[in-house]
Amino acid sequence: MSRLEVFGVEGIGEIRPGDDLAGIIAEAVELLDGDVVVVTQKIVSKAEDRLVAVDPDDPDGHRRVILDESVSILRRRGDLVISETRHGFVCANAGVDLSNVERGYAALLPEDSDRSARRIRDGLRARAGVEVGVIVSDTFGRTWRRGLTDVAIGCAGIGAIVDYRGTEDSLGRELHVTEVAVVDELAGAADLVMGKAEGIPVAVVRGVDPSWLRRGEVRAEIVRDPAEDLFR
Amino acid sequence: MSRLEVFGVEGIGEIRPGDDLAGIIAEAVELLDGDVVVVTQKIVSKAEDRLVAVDPDDPDGHRRVILDESVSILRRRGDLVISETRHGFVCANAGVDLSNVERGYAALLPEDSDRSARRIRDGLRARAGVEVGVIVSDTFGRTWRRGLTDVAIGCAGIGAIVDYRGTEDSLGRELHVTEVAVVDELAGAADLVMGKAEGIPVAVVRGVDPSWLRRGEVRAEIVRDPAEDLFR
Repeated sequence: MSRLEVFGVEGIGEIRPGDDLAGIIAEAVELLDGDVVVVTQKIVSKAEDRLVAVDPDDPDGHRRVILDESVSILRRRGDLVISETRHGFVCANAGVDLSNVERGYAALLPEDSDRSARRIRDGLRARAGVEVGVIVSDTFGRTWRRGLTDVAIGCAGIGAIVDYRGTEDSLGRELHVTEVAVVDELAGAADLVMGKAEGIPVAVVRGVDPSWLRRGEVRAEIVRDPAEDLFR
Repeated sequence: MSRLEVFGVEGIGEIRPGDDLAGIIAEAVELLDGDVVVVTQKIVSKAEDRLVAVDPDDPDGHRRVILDESVSILRRRGDLVISETRHGFVCANAGVDLSNVERGYAALLPEDSDRSARRIRDGLRARAGVEVGVIVSDTFGRTWRRGLTDVAIGCAGIGAIVDYRGTEDSLGRELHVTEVAVVDELAGAADLVMGKAEGIPVAVVRGVDPSWLRRGEVRAEIVRDPAEDLFR
């Protein structure tokens, strides 16, 4: 059976608009073919210049940015807005984040986070000659569970979902509905070595089942069609 | 920064009511102090004899068991029931499962899955002389994301949530709301080495931050108070 290693990549440093993330990652860690590289949304958004100025003394400033980034609002309570982003993600505050961002700025989600992952993957192939999977991760809450977990908001070179339907369980019964969101489990595993405050924005998962390393996309595979959504 | 190893435990074999799970696990793998042992709900339910007979030819049989295991129904669509269990978990079919269970039987969730985790932890201390964290995991869906992930339904010897509130981010700003559900991220990481069909019902995560290994409980820490639930 497989054995995974999960480790944080040190020495990434502060990321600025225009920075070449793939180049910086390739400098910081020796990657192997088949590795999965998990990159937090925050540094992707910074590299892609998805920062907007918000007046830190105007409580409405942050709120306006959140509404701008939302296509629909599902719920509001106090300062918390649960909304749907252009990507189709349902999350708190449309993914707009003030932490680990310079005072006076907020970080928006990447415009197309699967494309962000593809760019990093292509860059790592060009820079380091490796074929890896890339996941862009972000920290989301859950409807009925307290606490946050990291999930994938973009991926490339790895399928977002592994489909076990049609295979048999250990007793020879066909498994009917078992589509596992492996990119979300991988993003969560990576978070375990990143901490929140230590500024480790990249982690590597080594030893992933090679059959998972295929074309993949969070938007196409993970985002639930509103028509099958029971909770709006 | 930390480095995790995640590996499946082979040789667990078929579990029967009354089996001593801790003894079986201690025989199958050499554990170290500080390891986190993730055990799937299915074998916990089997060992605790949480199996009920259901007539496989009566489609209503399964449904009746699900209703018996639910304290409230949130949504129904076709065969799918989203309900709240006695533990406070909101999940599909009240966690009642027919896969990897003998034909004619369904596996219910453990009565008290934190207690199940504590028993396994105590058993591993007695059998192997190790202080480990134990997580009982199950496979749940998510409201707005397709695909399933494994999450913790019980834990012992590890805090369910790590609270980074009050610590500072890498730019010296205080992190306000960052409570990470590490037991869920650990359960998901373990699932990555278990597969669904191969019958690897136990995995070990080695290298977890020692400060996380404290008293913990899924029910007290993770289950969201219905009063703060925006989506019922």
